[in-house]
Amino acid sequence: MSDKEQYLVNTEPFYQPQHREVALYEAAYRRRLPVMVKGPTGCGKSRFIEYMAWRLGKPLITVACNEDMTASDLVGRYLLEANGTRWLDGPLTTAARIGAICYLDEIVEARQDTIVVIHPLTDHRRMLPLDKKGELLPAHADFQLVISYNPGYQSLMKDLKPSTKQRFTAFDFDYPGAALEADILTRETGLDGAMAERLVSIGAVARRLKGHGLDEGISTRLLVYAAALIQDAVDPRDACHMALVSPVTDDADIRATLEHAIAATFA
Amino acid sequence: MSDKEQYLVNTEPFYQPQHREVALYEAAYRRRLPVMVKGPTGCGKSRFIEYMAWRLGKPLITVACNEDMTASDLVGRYLLEANGTRWLDGPLTTAARIGAICYLDEIVEARQDTIVVIHPLTDHRRMLPLDKKGELLPAHADFQLVISYNPGYQSLMKDLKPSTKQRFTAFDFDYPGAALEADILTRETGLDGAMAERLVSIGAVARRLKGHGLDEGISTRLLVYAAALIQDAVDPRDACHMALVSPVTDDADIRATLEHAIAATFA
Amino acid sequence: MSDKEQYLVNTEPFYQPQHREVALYEAAYRRRLPVMVKGPTGCGKSRFIEYMAWRLGKPLITVACNEDMTASDLVGRYLLEANGTRWLDGPLTTAARIGAICYLDEIVEARQDTIVVIHPLTDHRRMLPLDKKGELLPAHADFQLVISYNPGYQSLMKDLKPSTKQRFTAFDFDYPGAALEADILTRETGLDGAMAERLVSIGAVARRLKGHGLDEGISTRLLVYAAALIQDAVDPRDACHMALVSPVTDDADIRATLEHAIAATFA
Amino acid sequence: MSDKEQYLVNTEPFYQPQHREVALYEAAYRRRLPVMVKGPTGCGKSRFIEYMAWRLGKPLITVACNEDMTASDLVGRYLLEANGTRWLDGPLTTAARIGAICYLDEIVEARQDTIVVIHPLTDHRRMLPLDKKGELLPAHADFQLVISYNPGYQSLMKDLKPSTKQRFTAFDFDYPGAALEADILTRETGLDGAMAERLVSIGAVARRLKGHGLDEGISTRLLVYAAALIQDAVDPRDACHMALVSPVTDDADIRATLEHAIAATFA
Amino acid sequence: MSDKEQYLVNTEPFYQPQHREVALYEAAYRRRLPVMVKGPTGCGKSRFIEYMAWRLGKPLITVACNEDMTASDLVGRYLLEANGTRWLDGPLTTAARIGAICYLDEIVEARQDTIVVIHPLTDHRRMLPLDKKGELLPAHADFQLVISYNPGYQSLMKDLKPSTKQRFTAFDFDYPGAALEADILTRETGLDGAMAERLVSIGAVARRLKGHGLDEGISTRLLVYAAALIQDAVDPRDACHMALVSPVTDDADIRATLEHAIAATFA
Amino acid sequence: MSDKEQYLVNTEPFYQPQHREVALYEAAYRRRLPVMVKGPTGCGKSRFIEYMAWRLGKPLITVACNEDMTASDLVGRYLLEANGTRWLDGPLTTAARIGAICYLDEIVEARQDTIVVIHPLTDHRRMLPLDKKGELLPAHADFQLVISYNPGYQSLMKDLKPSTKQRFTAFDFDYPGAALEADILTRETGLDGAMAERLVSIGAVARRLKGHGLDEGISTRLLVYAAALIQDAVDPRDACHMALVSPVTDDADIRATLEHAIAATFA
Repeated sequence: MSDKEQYLVNTEPFYQPQHREVALYEAAYRRRLPVMVKGPTGCGKSRFIEYMAWRLGKPLITVACNEDMTASDLVGRYLLEANGTRWLDGPLTTAARIGAICYLDEIVEARQDTIVVIHPLTDHRRMLPLDKKGELLPAHADFQLVISYNPGYQSLMKDLKPSTKQRFTAFDFDYPGAALEADILTRETGLDGAMAERLVSIGAVARRLKGHGLDEGISTRLLVYAAALIQDAVDPRDACHMALVSPVTDDADIRATLEHAIAATFA
Repeated sequence: MSDKEQYLVNTEPFYQPQHREVALYEAAYRRRLPVMVKGPTGCGKSRFIEYMAWRLGKPLITVACNEDMTASDLVGRYLLEANGTRWLDGPLTTAARIGAICYLDEIVEARQDTIVVIHPLTDHRRMLPLDKKGELLPAHADFQLVISYNPGYQSLMKDLKPSTKQRFTAFDFDYPGAALEADILTRETGLDGAMAERLVSIGAVARRLKGHGLDEGISTRLLVYAAALIQDAVDPRDACHMALVSPVTDDADIRATLEHAIAATFA
Repeated sequence: MSDKEQYLVNTEPFYQPQHREVALYEAAYRRRLPVMVKGPTGCGKSRFIEYMAWRLGKPLITVACNEDMTASDLVGRYLLEANGTRWLDGPLTTAARIGAICYLDEIVEARQDTIVVIHPLTDHRRMLPLDKKGELLPAHADFQLVISYNPGYQSLMKDLKPSTKQRFTAFDFDYPGAALEADILTRETGLDGAMAERLVSIGAVARRLKGHGLDEGISTRLLVYAAALIQDAVDPRDACHMALVSPVTDDADIRATLEHAIAATFA
Repeated sequence: MSDKEQYLVNTEPFYQPQHREVALYEAAYRRRLPVMVKGPTGCGKSRFIEYMAWRLGKPLITVACNEDMTASDLVGRYLLEANGTRWLDGPLTTAARIGAICYLDEIVEARQDTIVVIHPLTDHRRMLPLDKKGELLPAHADFQLVISYNPGYQSLMKDLKPSTKQRFTAFDFDYPGAALEADILTRETGLDGAMAERLVSIGAVARRLKGHGLDEGISTRLLVYAAALIQDAVDPRDACHMALVSPVTDDADIRATLEHAIAATFA
Repeated sequence: MSDKEQYLVNTEPFYQPQHREVALYEAAYRRRLPVMVKGPTGCGKSRFIEYMAWRLGKPLITVACNEDMTASDLVGRYLLEANGTRWLDGPLTTAARIGAICYLDEIVEARQDTIVVIHPLTDHRRMLPLDKKGELLPAHADFQLVISYNPGYQSLMKDLKPSTKQRFTAFDFDYPGAALEADILTRETGLDGAMAERLVSIGAVARRLKGHGLDEGISTRLLVYAAALIQDAVDPRDACHMALVSPVTDDADIRATLEHAIAATFA
Repeated sequence: MSDKEQYLVNTEPFYQPQHREVALYEAAYRRRLPVMVKGPTGCGKSRFIEYMAWRLGKPLITVACNEDMTASDLVGRYLLEANGTRWLDGPLTTAARIGAICYLDEIVEARQDTIVVIHPLTDHRRMLPLDKKGELLPAHADFQLVISYNPGYQSLMKDLKPSTKQRFTAFDFDYPGAALEADILTRETGLDGAMAERLVSIGAVARRLKGHGLDEGISTRLLVYAAALIQDAVDPRDACHMALVSPVTDDADIRATLEHAIAATFA
């Protein structure tokens, strides 16, 4: 299986558009403009990119960024072998070579100093200098760079530098609207619509607590967890406690507020 | 012995259920939802997971997290050998390959930056990108990720990020109730029930001191130590001093309070 | 292809002079004086150097500086091979050997401690000591060192040391004037002149917000992105939101100001 | 000589019991409970463990902990050899394999993050996961873990975590009583009893200064140094200055107090 | 070419003595006393040492110090080769072996902890212990150690330790007097004397601003840059802006002051 | 030449005893007690140890401590060679094997965490565990450990831990008395006695400034430098400026005080 085939998204991911984001992304891709997707945890950013890669028929290479990630982890390094060293492309280099969409997930987790290696790929040069190999790699015509970014984490310590931000077009994401979110729960787990709406209403309570004791609201992903457990015959109150309360907070007041909403909803 | 067999739990671990946690865990496992077990030191979190692995007949791979742990320690690395380098899977990769329950114990000890490598395994992708090997590993159908977490340690410096928390269902654990805890002491050490109850009552005194000079209450494990020493004919006051007082505090006032309770109990 | 040919700029880059910078750069190059180009993100510094390299017919080696960059990344290192180690020149050494213009982009990102390796190349010695190789490399007669520098980032932590600054002549850059900038948008994307002027007027609004909520104004590059999207039939308001608002700020007030200007311009 | 024999304590170390610690240690060892020995510098903690290893006829492996110590230093690592890499067990692994008492001296010097590798050896599992080797090592039936700990150093930065403390039974040590300490000086150096008592009385003066200008009192070890010098015909005042004053403080007032006590004692 | 020949200064460097420094340096060299040259950036410290090496006919080995520099970078290290490892002397070791003047430029950039490796070479021992090689290298009779030091950088964080300072004799340098500096400009660039004096007068203005907005005055080196550009027919105001204003400050007030002086001088 | 012979001090170092330190050191060595020599920079600590090694006829291995020094630098490491890895003893291990005096110069420069490796060599065990080699090395009967220590540097950050201090006997050093110091100048440089006394009187002025603007007084070593230059016909005022003023301070007031004393002395 070639590198390129390995990274193709073969089955259509389940994705429910929220606005005009599909057409706008296609326009950005046509010009190969770098794209930044912004929004809270678990609102569907990664799935949107996966869906677009499938729709465009382009390979997708995802990198979960972290603070230990070095430029070599992105670009590549020499490996020692029986007869000397062998160069191994990193995921960014592979993407630039084969013409993939390279998706750097949670970019703010990476040190901003590492991130500068993407700069020459995101301006008119569209080149990746492999300094350690002494090679100047021009990006494949299909290559595009995409990053995700959670503005809720934005802080003085962990924000993108202006010289990085100004290389991207951006898409703002948020949790889906209530009707759409209930529809997602039903389609992903088989839960009936009335139950799904009840779960979505609990999510709405939690999201109003953001900034008042919760760092983030409850994500669509956690609502899907609860729906799956209920669909498997777990008591809705147990399912909600396991999936919507216990993971997100240990604060007694916030827990009481959430448990109260759950009890009222599933009385 | 195959990898898989090596990690099977062959004998039923002694585990006394506290609530409905066994059935709820089975529901979570049915959907392969990631699980977080929360609770204080020594209350039986690790043993619960070991028991569930035995009950479900799945291999269990445990990793004691620490701050030096790198993504490579979890995922794998190249080793240099006589005829070149050889890839060695890390414990997370092994678990994903063979379909084990991967248990990351005391996850908050790991740097949050390392933890992000588990993200692609905990969402709809259920994949582990082995960037250094250029391989995209889809998780085995039996694979499940479990983490343990002590909320008592929670601090601004060492807390899980929302984008990690929101990938798990959670179980809240606490010390067992008095009758159950006495029963555990008896079954683990052979100590008679009356003595066991007396030890449990001393544990209750210490747990009320949590936050008033003690960072944590006395764990069930330390009560088991004391019970074992008493069962071996050590004077109960010596046993309590060695197992319940000296390890947990050097504060003269707290020590006096504990010694007083011990003297009163074993007068 | 020789090293030297690989680094030649073969096609004339699009560059629109702002003042007398072309003649002054030629004078500096004649004396091989080290050059510093200063100015905000995305105002055309890198393109100017690329243009001059093309004009002078000299190879250009660009290094995107970052904090992880070590002296070895610039100078070179030993690689392990089948029959021992082999020395690999770093980009600075290659440039000094073949007589290239070595362009250290965003120099303040590098640790000042790494930067001192350029000192012997920037005074009367024009030599690069390769300590690890035990070689004293005299620079090729055509070699010149160029650095870029964004004074907006200047801080106590990240500023060049006087002993570095005092080795360079400097060119001040800024965003191009309105007419020139509109011309650039038209020439790069094919957008008609009236639309281009409207985009430039929005850029002017954003640049006035610098220091009042925006770290940097909107760069010419982002205006080019917007122009490209409009030229591809994207609604101008969507294009402006994607390229001029969403990437640069999450502040609700600043966003409102920018969206207001966009709505007024494209009403 | 086998690994096991190399670590046996062949001659009885000189150890003078202070309380019931010998019998209590034997009880803890019978159950293989992990042991923590607590007390000030130079009060005989290490010698007690050496004595117990001799008495029980078990090998003793001592590790002087330090902040640079990594998990690999304890557990083992791969070494590169002519025909590939070879695994070398670390001291903790060796102890677990051969059934030794593993003594981690001055444990608080190690980073708490390193220390967690001992956790699986100190609960019901008694196993050491060698992640880098892909091996799960069950501890030998004779293996026991012992740590030493100086509560005087206890600080917010360098204290054991509750989840570590709660894995140990503990023994409190202090300087020996006056008569016993004089006896130790005589038996170790041959100094006559009257002189030994005089040295012990100077030690008592210094210990009262702890917390009033001295970080720690004068240890039995330093008194032994002074006794040895006096026994070798050094003037007692010179011996006390060299062994009891100059090493422990440069504070003029504390020095004067100590010198005054010395002059009064050896007038 | 032998190591020694490679480091000889073959042509007399242009150096204009300021005081009795040549004779005093010769006296220090006669006794092989370690020498520290102190003074602001670009005042001619490095050139003085190069001149003295030429005058004394001794090889000169220069090291540009930086914070990443390790003791191994100075002393040497093992390199891996086809048939095992090979020791490579560092520049300090080479200098001690062949009897060169070893010049550590900008010593305060190195970590003080690295600097201690020079201690055994700077006292009566005149030896360099190569710990990693197990060799004690006595310095060649001609070896001398020289360091440069910019007191303007002196801070609590980056100052030499007394135990290092007290191993050196020192020479104080400053910018040359006006007549001498004009003479230097003329001799280095061919600029006529009247123009040279005008440049020197602008330098005097800038040096009075030191501590009042400028970290350092304008160095002789920058004046030479301006002179070279003027001599190449660049407009004197452009030359001064490029060489004397833009590189040293972005402060609008300071720039105005300097531009004012330039306009007045070249009106 | 054997390891042992290489480290013997073959010619008597010039050393002028100040008090009873020679006899007291001999007594400490007879018992092999670890020794700490304390005192300001350049007062003769290192030379005293060199003299004692010569007098006792024992090899001397000196290590200049620094913060980068790791336990491996002291103890040893594996080197990669053509046919596998080879162990290379570090200086501490060599000293323990051959029975040398191991002198750790400026011990406070080392991280306290590195220093703990000396602990097992400094108590009744007199053993060095080579963990990485799996060897327990008993020290040679002639082995002794000596450390030097400058109390003037003592700070919260860089002080020895009590558990280290309490392993040593200590010797207090200070600058020699005036007559002795003048005698040293004469004997080391040949300077006549009257001139030597004048230099010593300037040293006395500087030492009174310690803590009033000078971190340390002028060392005997710097006085020897000045004496050597005067003896070589350098003007005494130039010699004093070069050796006694310029190296130790850039403070204008302190310089004036010192220059005043010099002018008065050599008027």
